[in-house]
Amino acid sequence: MSNDQIPGYTMGEDSVQEAPIGMDEFDQLKQTVMFTEEDEEHLQEAGDILGPQGGEILDVWYGFVGDHDFLVYYFSQPDGEPIDGYLDRVRDRFVQWVRDTCDTPYDEAWLDYQFEIARRHHRTKKNQADDVDAVPNIDLRYVIAFIYPITATIRDFLDDGDHSAEEVDAMYHAWFKSVTLQVALWSYPYAEEDW
Amino acid sequence: MSNDQIPGYTMGEDSVQEAPIGMDEFDQLKQTVMFTEEDEEHLQEAGDILGPQGGEILDVWYGFVGDHDFLVYYFSQPDGEPIDGYLDRVRDRFVQWVRDTCDTPYDEAWLDYQFEIARRHHRTKKNQADDVDAVPNIDLRYVIAFIYPITATIRDFLDDGDHSAEEVDAMYHAWFKSVTLQVALWSYPYAEEDW
Repeated sequence: MSNDQIPGYTMGEDSVQEAPIGMDEFDQLKQTVMFTEEDEEHLQEAGDILGPQGGEILDVWYGFVGDHDFLVYYFSQPDGEPIDGYLDRVRDRFVQWVRDTCDTPYDEAWLDYQFEIARRHHRTKKNQADDVDAVPNIDLRYVIAFIYPITATIRDFLDDGDHSAEEVDAMYHAWFKSVTLQVALWSYPYAEEDW
Repeated sequence: MSNDQIPGYTMGEDSVQEAPIGMDEFDQLKQTVMFTEEDEEHLQEAGDILGPQGGEILDVWYGFVGDHDFLVYYFSQPDGEPIDGYLDRVRDRFVQWVRDTCDTPYDEAWLDYQFEIARRHHRTKKNQADDVDAVPNIDLRYVIAFIYPITATIRDFLDDGDHSAEEVDAMYHAWFKSVTLQVALWSYPYAEEDW
Protein backbone atom coordinates (compact mmCIF):
# COMPACT_ATOMS: atom_id res chain seq x y z
CA MET A 1 0.00 0.00 0.00
CA SER A 2 1.54 3.35 -0.94
CA ASN A 3 1.26 6.16 1.59
CA ASP A 4 -1.59 7.99 -0.14
CA GLN A 5 -3.71 4.82 -0.06
CA ILE A 6 -3.53 4.54 3.73
CA PRO A 7 -6.86 5.69 5.12
CA GLY A 8 -6.54 8.90 7.14
CA TYR A 9 -2.76 9.05 6.91
CA THR A 10 -1.72 12.67 6.47
CA MET A 11 1.98 13.00 7.33
CA GLY A 12 3.50 15.85 5.36
CA GLU A 13 0.16 17.26 4.27
CA ASP A 14 -0.78 20.93 4.67
CA SER A 15 -3.67 19.97 6.96
CA VAL A 16 -1.21 18.97 9.73
CA GLN A 17 -0.62 21.80 12.22
CA GLU A 18 2.86 22.87 13.19
CA ALA A 19 4.30 21.27 16.33
CA PRO A 20 4.08 23.33 19.54
CA ILE A 21 7.84 22.80 20.09
CA GLY A 22 10.76 23.48 17.81
CA MET A 23 13.56 21.12 16.80
CA ASP A 24 15.77 22.46 19.63
CA GLU A 25 13.24 21.48 22.30
CA PHE A 26 12.69 18.15 20.49
CA ASP A 27 16.44 17.61 20.66
CA GLN A 28 16.35 18.00 24.47
CA LEU A 29 13.67 15.35 24.67
CA LYS A 30 15.79 13.06 22.47
CA GLN A 31 18.71 13.59 24.85
CA THR A 32 16.48 12.62 27.77
CA VAL A 33 15.69 9.24 26.20
CA MET A 34 19.40 8.93 25.29
CA PHE A 35 18.57 8.93 21.58
CA THR A 36 21.65 9.36 19.36
CA GLU A 37 22.65 9.16 15.70
CA GLU A 38 23.57 5.52 16.29
CA ASP A 39 19.98 4.86 17.27
CA GLU A 40 18.88 6.44 14.00
CA GLU A 41 21.08 3.95 12.16
CA HIS A 42 19.84 1.02 14.22
CA LEU A 43 16.26 2.02 13.46
CA GLN A 44 17.01 2.12 9.74
CA GLU A 45 18.33 -1.45 9.99
CA ALA A 46 15.28 -2.38 12.06
CA GLY A 47 13.07 -0.95 9.32
CA ASP A 48 14.52 -3.37 6.77
CA ILE A 49 13.65 -6.27 9.09
CA LEU A 50 10.29 -5.06 10.38
CA GLY A 51 8.94 -3.54 7.15
CA PRO A 52 7.98 -6.86 5.52
CA GLN A 53 6.54 -8.16 8.83
CA GLY A 54 3.98 -5.38 9.36
CA GLY A 55 1.00 -7.73 9.11
CA GLU A 56 2.41 -10.23 11.62
CA ILE A 57 3.38 -7.48 14.07
CA LEU A 58 -0.12 -6.04 13.93
CA ASP A 59 -1.57 -9.53 14.46
CA VAL A 60 0.32 -9.67 17.76
CA TRP A 61 -0.70 -6.17 18.86
CA TYR A 62 -4.33 -6.53 17.86
CA GLY A 63 -4.37 -9.96 19.47
CA PHE A 64 -3.22 -8.36 22.71
CA VAL A 65 -5.89 -5.66 22.48
CA GLY A 66 -8.54 -8.23 21.56
CA ASP A 67 -7.72 -10.29 24.65
CA HIS A 68 -8.67 -7.38 26.93
CA ASP A 69 -12.18 -5.91 26.82
CA PHE A 70 -11.02 -2.75 28.56
CA LEU A 71 -8.64 -2.15 25.61
CA VAL A 72 -11.10 -3.08 22.84
CA TYR A 73 -13.27 -0.44 24.53
CA TYR A 74 -11.30 2.36 22.84
CA PHE A 75 -12.23 1.01 19.40
CA SER A 76 -15.89 0.63 20.36
CA GLN A 77 -19.08 2.58 20.38
CA PRO A 78 -20.04 3.94 23.80
CA ASP A 79 -22.58 1.08 24.04
CA GLY A 80 -19.70 -1.42 23.84
CA GLU A 81 -19.89 -2.62 20.22
CA PRO A 82 -16.42 -2.77 18.56
CA ILE A 83 -16.30 -0.92 15.22
CA ASP A 84 -14.61 -3.24 12.70
CA GLY A 85 -14.10 -0.60 10.02
CA TYR A 86 -12.35 1.62 12.56
CA LEU A 87 -10.09 -1.22 13.68
CA ASP A 88 -9.18 -1.92 10.03
CA ARG A 89 -8.33 1.68 9.20
CA VAL A 90 -6.25 2.17 12.35
CA ARG A 91 -4.47 -1.11 11.59
CA ASP A 92 -3.28 0.15 8.20
CA ARG A 93 -1.96 3.34 9.76
CA PHE A 94 -0.30 1.34 12.54
CA VAL A 95 1.67 -0.67 9.95
CA GLN A 96 2.79 2.62 8.44
CA TRP A 97 3.70 3.85 11.93
CA VAL A 98 6.18 0.98 12.26
CA ARG A 99 7.82 2.14 9.02
CA ASP A 100 7.78 5.80 10.08
CA THR A 101 9.34 4.93 13.45
CA CYS A 102 12.26 3.33 11.60
CA ASP A 103 12.51 6.08 8.94
CA THR A 104 15.13 8.24 10.63
CA PRO A 105 16.32 10.94 11.06
CA TYR A 106 13.06 12.48 12.22
CA ASP A 107 12.36 15.75 10.41
CA GLU A 108 9.90 18.57 11.03
CA ALA A 109 7.09 16.86 9.10
CA TRP A 110 7.56 13.81 11.33
CA LEU A 111 7.52 15.94 14.49
CA ASP A 112 4.42 17.85 13.37
CA TYR A 113 2.66 14.56 12.66
CA GLN A 114 3.35 13.21 16.16
CA PHE A 115 1.11 15.95 17.51
CA GLU A 116 -1.56 15.01 14.97
CA ILE A 117 -1.32 11.42 16.26
CA ALA A 118 -1.58 12.88 19.77
CA ARG A 119 -4.79 14.74 18.94
CA ARG A 120 -6.23 11.58 17.42
CA HIS A 121 -5.71 9.71 20.71
CA HIS A 122 -7.12 12.58 22.71
CA ARG A 123 -10.70 13.89 22.59
CA THR A 124 -9.43 16.85 20.55
CA LYS A 125 -9.69 14.80 17.33
CA LYS A 126 -10.36 11.15 18.21
CA ASN A 127 -12.66 9.43 15.66
CA GLN A 128 -12.56 12.32 13.18
CA ALA A 129 -10.04 10.86 10.73
CA ASP A 130 -12.18 7.73 10.47
CA ASP A 131 -15.60 9.36 10.81
CA VAL A 132 -16.70 6.96 13.55
CA ASP A 133 -18.69 7.24 16.77
CA ALA A 134 -16.31 5.43 19.08
CA VAL A 135 -15.67 6.48 22.71
CA PRO A 136 -14.35 10.05 22.67
CA ASN A 137 -10.91 9.73 24.29
CA ILE A 138 -8.12 7.21 24.89
CA ASP A 139 -7.33 7.58 28.55
CA LEU A 140 -3.76 8.79 28.96
CA ARG A 141 -2.75 6.04 31.37
CA TYR A 142 -3.29 3.46 28.64
CA VAL A 143 -1.35 5.45 26.06
CA ILE A 144 1.61 5.42 28.46
CA ALA A 145 1.15 1.80 29.60
CA PHE A 146 1.34 0.68 25.96
CA ILE A 147 5.03 1.59 25.91
CA TYR A 148 5.71 -1.82 27.44
CA PRO A 149 3.85 -4.21 25.09
CA ILE A 150 4.75 -2.20 21.96
CA THR A 151 8.40 -2.40 22.96
CA ALA A 152 8.70 -5.91 24.42
CA THR A 153 6.85 -7.68 21.61
CA ILE A 154 9.10 -6.23 18.89
CA ARG A 155 12.24 -8.09 19.95
CA ASP A 156 11.24 -11.43 18.43
CA PHE A 157 10.50 -9.73 15.11
CA LEU A 158 13.95 -8.09 15.11
CA ASP A 159 15.68 -11.41 15.77
CA ASP A 160 15.60 -12.66 12.18
CA GLY A 161 18.59 -15.00 12.45
CA ASP A 162 20.84 -12.75 10.33
CA HIS A 163 21.95 -10.48 13.15
CA SER A 164 23.99 -11.06 16.31
CA ALA A 165 22.35 -10.81 19.73
CA GLU A 166 24.28 -7.56 20.18
CA GLU A 167 22.90 -6.08 16.96
CA VAL A 168 19.35 -7.15 17.82
CA ASP A 169 19.76 -5.58 21.23
CA ALA A 170 20.97 -2.30 19.72
CA MET A 171 17.94 -2.16 17.40
CA TYR A 172 15.65 -3.10 20.25
CA HIS A 173 16.95 -0.31 22.48
CA ALA A 174 16.68 2.23 19.66
CA TRP A 175 13.05 1.14 19.25
CA PHE A 176 12.39 1.42 23.00
CA LYS A 177 13.82 4.94 23.02
CA SER A 178 11.73 5.98 20.04
CA VAL A 179 8.49 4.58 21.46
CA THR A 180 9.11 6.38 24.75
CA LEU A 181 9.94 9.60 22.88
CA GLN A 182 6.78 9.38 20.80
CA VAL A 183 4.51 8.69 23.78
CA ALA A 184 6.05 11.71 25.51
CA LEU A 185 5.03 13.77 22.45
CA TRP A 186 1.58 12.18 22.28
CA SER A 187 0.83 13.27 25.85
CA TYR A 188 0.76 16.94 24.80
CA PRO A 189 -3.01 17.54 24.37
CA TYR A 190 -3.71 15.82 27.72
CA ALA A 191 -1.54 18.25 29.68
CA GLU A 192 -1.03 21.32 27.46
CA GLU A 193 0.52 24.02 29.70
CA ASP A 194 1.80 21.42 32.18
CA TRP A 195 3.27 19.30 29.38
CA MET B 1 18.13 5.17 57.02
CA SER B 2 14.82 3.86 58.36
CA ASN B 3 11.66 4.97 56.57
CA ASP B 4 10.64 7.57 59.14
CA GLN B 5 14.01 9.29 58.79
CA ILE B 6 13.58 9.87 55.06
CA PRO B 7 12.71 13.54 54.56
CA GLY B 8 9.18 14.03 53.25
CA TYR B 9 8.51 10.31 52.80
CA THR B 10 4.91 9.63 53.79
CA MET B 11 3.86 6.25 52.36
CA GLY B 12 1.20 4.69 54.56
CA GLU B 13 0.55 7.88 56.50
CA ASP B 14 -2.94 9.30 57.03
CA SER B 15 -1.98 12.47 55.18
CA VAL B 16 -1.90 10.56 51.88
CA GLN B 17 -5.18 10.80 49.95
CA GLU B 18 -6.92 7.74 48.61
CA ALA B 19 -6.15 6.81 45.00
CA PRO B 20 -8.69 7.93 42.37
CA ILE B 21 -8.85 4.35 41.06
CA GLY B 22 -9.57 1.10 42.88
CA MET B 23 -7.51 -2.09 42.85
CA ASP B 24 -9.66 -3.50 40.00
CA GLU B 25 -8.80 -0.61 37.69
CA PHE B 26 -5.18 -0.83 38.85
CA ASP B 27 -5.23 -4.49 37.88
CA GLN B 28 -6.30 -3.58 34.33
CA LEU B 29 -3.35 -1.23 34.06
CA LYS B 30 -1.05 -4.02 35.31
CA GLN B 31 -2.43 -6.29 32.61
CA THR B 32 -1.68 -3.62 30.01
CA VAL B 33 2.01 -3.57 30.97
CA MET B 34 1.89 -7.40 31.09
CA PHE B 35 2.71 -7.37 34.81
CA THR B 36 2.23 -10.78 36.48
CA GLU B 37 2.94 -12.52 39.78
CA GLU B 38 6.22 -13.71 38.28
CA ASP B 39 7.23 -10.10 37.86
CA GLU B 40 6.46 -9.53 41.52
CA GLU B 41 8.88 -12.33 42.38
CA HIS B 42 11.55 -11.02 40.00
CA LEU B 43 11.25 -7.59 41.59
CA GLN B 44 11.72 -9.07 45.05
CA GLU B 45 14.94 -10.71 43.83
CA ALA B 46 15.93 -7.42 42.22
CA GLY B 47 15.36 -5.69 45.54
CA ASP B 48 17.97 -7.90 47.21
CA ILE B 49 20.49 -6.92 44.55
CA LEU B 50 19.61 -3.24 44.16
CA GLY B 51 18.93 -2.42 47.83
CA PRO B 52 22.59 -2.22 48.88
CA GLN B 53 23.47 -0.27 45.70
CA GLY B 54 21.07 2.64 46.23
CA GLY B 55 23.85 5.21 46.52
CA GLU B 56 25.61 4.08 43.35
CA ILE B 57 22.34 3.95 41.38
CA LEU B 58 21.50 7.50 42.44
CA ASP B 59 25.00 8.63 41.47
CA VAL B 60 24.27 7.45 37.93
CA TRP B 61 20.82 9.06 37.78
CA TYR B 62 21.90 12.34 39.32
CA GLY B 63 24.96 12.31 37.06
CA PHE B 64 22.63 12.06 34.08
CA VAL B 65 20.46 14.91 35.36
CA GLY B 66 23.54 16.99 36.18
CA ASP B 67 24.86 16.60 32.63
CA HIS B 68 21.76 18.33 31.21
CA ASP B 69 20.89 21.88 32.25
CA PHE B 70 17.31 21.46 31.03
CA LEU B 71 16.89 18.62 33.57
CA VAL B 72 18.68 20.34 36.48
CA TYR B 73 16.15 23.10 35.80
CA TYR B 74 13.43 21.14 37.63
CA PHE B 75 15.52 21.19 40.82
CA SER B 76 16.26 24.89 40.48
CA GLN B 77 14.83 28.23 41.45
CA PRO B 78 13.05 30.02 38.61
CA ASP B 79 16.17 32.22 38.26
CA GLY B 80 18.19 29.10 37.42
CA GLU B 81 20.03 28.39 40.67
CA PRO B 82 19.97 24.65 41.61
CA ILE B 83 18.76 24.05 45.18
CA ASP B 84 21.20 21.63 46.82
CA GLY B 85 19.03 20.87 49.84
CA TYR B 86 16.15 19.95 47.54
CA LEU B 87 18.37 17.67 45.46
CA ASP B 88 19.56 15.95 48.67
CA ARG B 89 16.10 15.35 50.08
CA VAL B 90 14.73 14.05 46.77
CA ARG B 91 17.78 11.80 46.48
CA ASP B 92 16.99 10.09 49.79
CA ARG B 93 13.41 9.48 48.73
CA PHE B 94 14.60 8.23 45.34
CA VAL B 95 16.72 5.55 47.05
CA GLN B 96 13.62 4.51 48.99
CA TRP B 97 11.65 4.50 45.72
CA VAL B 98 14.01 1.83 44.37
CA ARG B 99 13.20 -0.30 47.42
CA ASP B 100 9.46 0.38 47.16
CA THR B 101 9.47 -0.53 43.47
CA CYS B 102 10.91 -3.95 44.39
CA ASP B 103 8.69 -4.42 47.46
CA THR B 104 5.88 -6.37 45.82
CA PRO B 105 3.00 -7.14 45.76
CA TYR B 106 1.78 -3.56 45.54
CA ASP B 107 -0.95 -2.87 48.08
CA GLU B 108 -3.43 -0.02 48.52
CA ALA B 109 -0.99 2.09 50.52
CA TRP B 110 1.49 1.75 47.67
CA LEU B 111 -1.14 2.70 45.09
CA ASP B 112 -2.32 5.70 47.12
CA TYR B 113 1.27 6.88 47.43
CA GLN B 114 1.85 6.78 43.66
CA PHE B 115 -0.71 9.56 43.34
CA GLU B 116 1.07 11.51 46.07
CA ILE B 117 4.29 11.14 44.04
CA ALA B 118 2.27 12.29 41.02
CA ARG B 119 1.10 15.44 42.80
CA ARG B 120 4.68 16.16 43.84
CA HIS B 121 5.82 16.14 40.21
CA HIS B 122 2.88 18.25 39.13
CA ARG B 123 2.19 21.84 40.16
CA THR B 124 -0.53 20.51 42.52
CA LYS B 125 2.10 19.86 45.21
CA LYS B 126 5.58 20.29 43.73
CA ASN B 127 8.07 21.79 46.23
CA GLN B 128 5.69 21.52 49.21
CA ALA B 129 7.17 18.38 50.81
CA ASP B 130 10.58 20.04 50.80
CA ASP B 131 9.46 23.62 51.41
CA VAL B 132 11.46 24.99 48.50
CA ASP B 133 10.91 27.63 45.82
CA ALA B 134 11.90 25.61 42.78
CA VAL B 135 10.12 25.83 39.42
CA PRO B 136 6.44 24.97 39.95
CA ASN B 137 5.95 21.92 37.71
CA ILE B 138 7.86 19.05 36.11
CA ASP B 139 6.71 19.09 32.51
CA LEU B 140 4.93 15.84 31.72
CA ARG B 141 7.01 15.05 28.65
CA TYR B 142 10.09 14.73 30.85
CA VAL B 143 8.33 12.51 33.38
CA ILE B 144 7.47 10.14 30.53
CA ALA B 145 10.84 10.41 28.78
CA PHE B 146 12.56 9.33 32.01
CA ILE B 147 11.12 5.85 31.58
CA TYR B 148 14.05 5.13 29.29
CA PRO B 149 17.09 6.17 31.37
CA ILE B 150 15.57 4.87 34.63
CA THR B 151 15.02 1.51 32.96
CA ALA B 152 18.11 1.12 30.78
CA THR B 153 20.63 2.14 33.45
CA ILE B 154 19.37 -0.44 35.95
CA ARG B 155 20.51 -3.49 33.98
CA ASP B 156 24.18 -3.23 34.93
CA PHE B 157 23.24 -3.00 38.61
CA LEU B 158 21.12 -6.16 38.33
CA ASP B 159 23.96 -8.07 36.68
CA ASP B 160 25.83 -8.89 39.87
CA GLY B 161 27.60 -12.01 38.59
CA ASP B 162 25.46 -14.36 40.69
CA HIS B 163 22.55 -14.60 38.24
CA SER B 164 22.25 -15.99 34.73
CA ALA B 165 21.63 -13.66 31.79
CA GLU B 166 18.11 -15.08 31.68
CA GLU B 167 17.46 -14.23 35.34
CA VAL B 168 18.89 -10.74 34.94
CA ASP B 169 16.69 -10.25 31.90
CA ALA B 170 13.58 -11.35 33.83
CA MET B 171 14.34 -8.87 36.64
CA TYR B 172 15.08 -6.17 34.11
CA HIS B 173 11.76 -6.65 32.33
CA ALA B 174 9.85 -6.67 35.61
CA TRP B 175 11.56 -3.37 36.42
CA PHE B 176 10.69 -1.91 33.00
CA LYS B 177 7.05 -2.92 33.46
CA SER B 178 6.90 -1.37 36.92
CA VAL B 179 8.50 1.91 35.85
CA THR B 180 6.05 2.20 32.95
CA LEU B 181 3.15 1.37 35.26
CA GLN B 182 4.21 3.99 37.78
CA VAL B 183 4.70 6.73 35.19
CA ALA B 184 1.20 5.94 33.87
CA LEU B 185 -0.09 6.52 37.42
CA TRP B 186 2.02 9.66 37.89
CA SER B 187 0.43 11.25 34.82
CA TYR B 188 -2.93 11.52 36.60
CA PRO B 189 -2.87 15.15 37.81
CA TYR B 190 -1.70 16.34 34.38
CA ALA B 191 -4.75 14.93 32.60
CA GLU B 192 -7.42 14.32 35.28
CA GLU B 193 -10.68 13.56 33.41
CA ASP B 194 -8.77 12.54 30.24
CA TRP B 195 -6.45 10.29 32.23
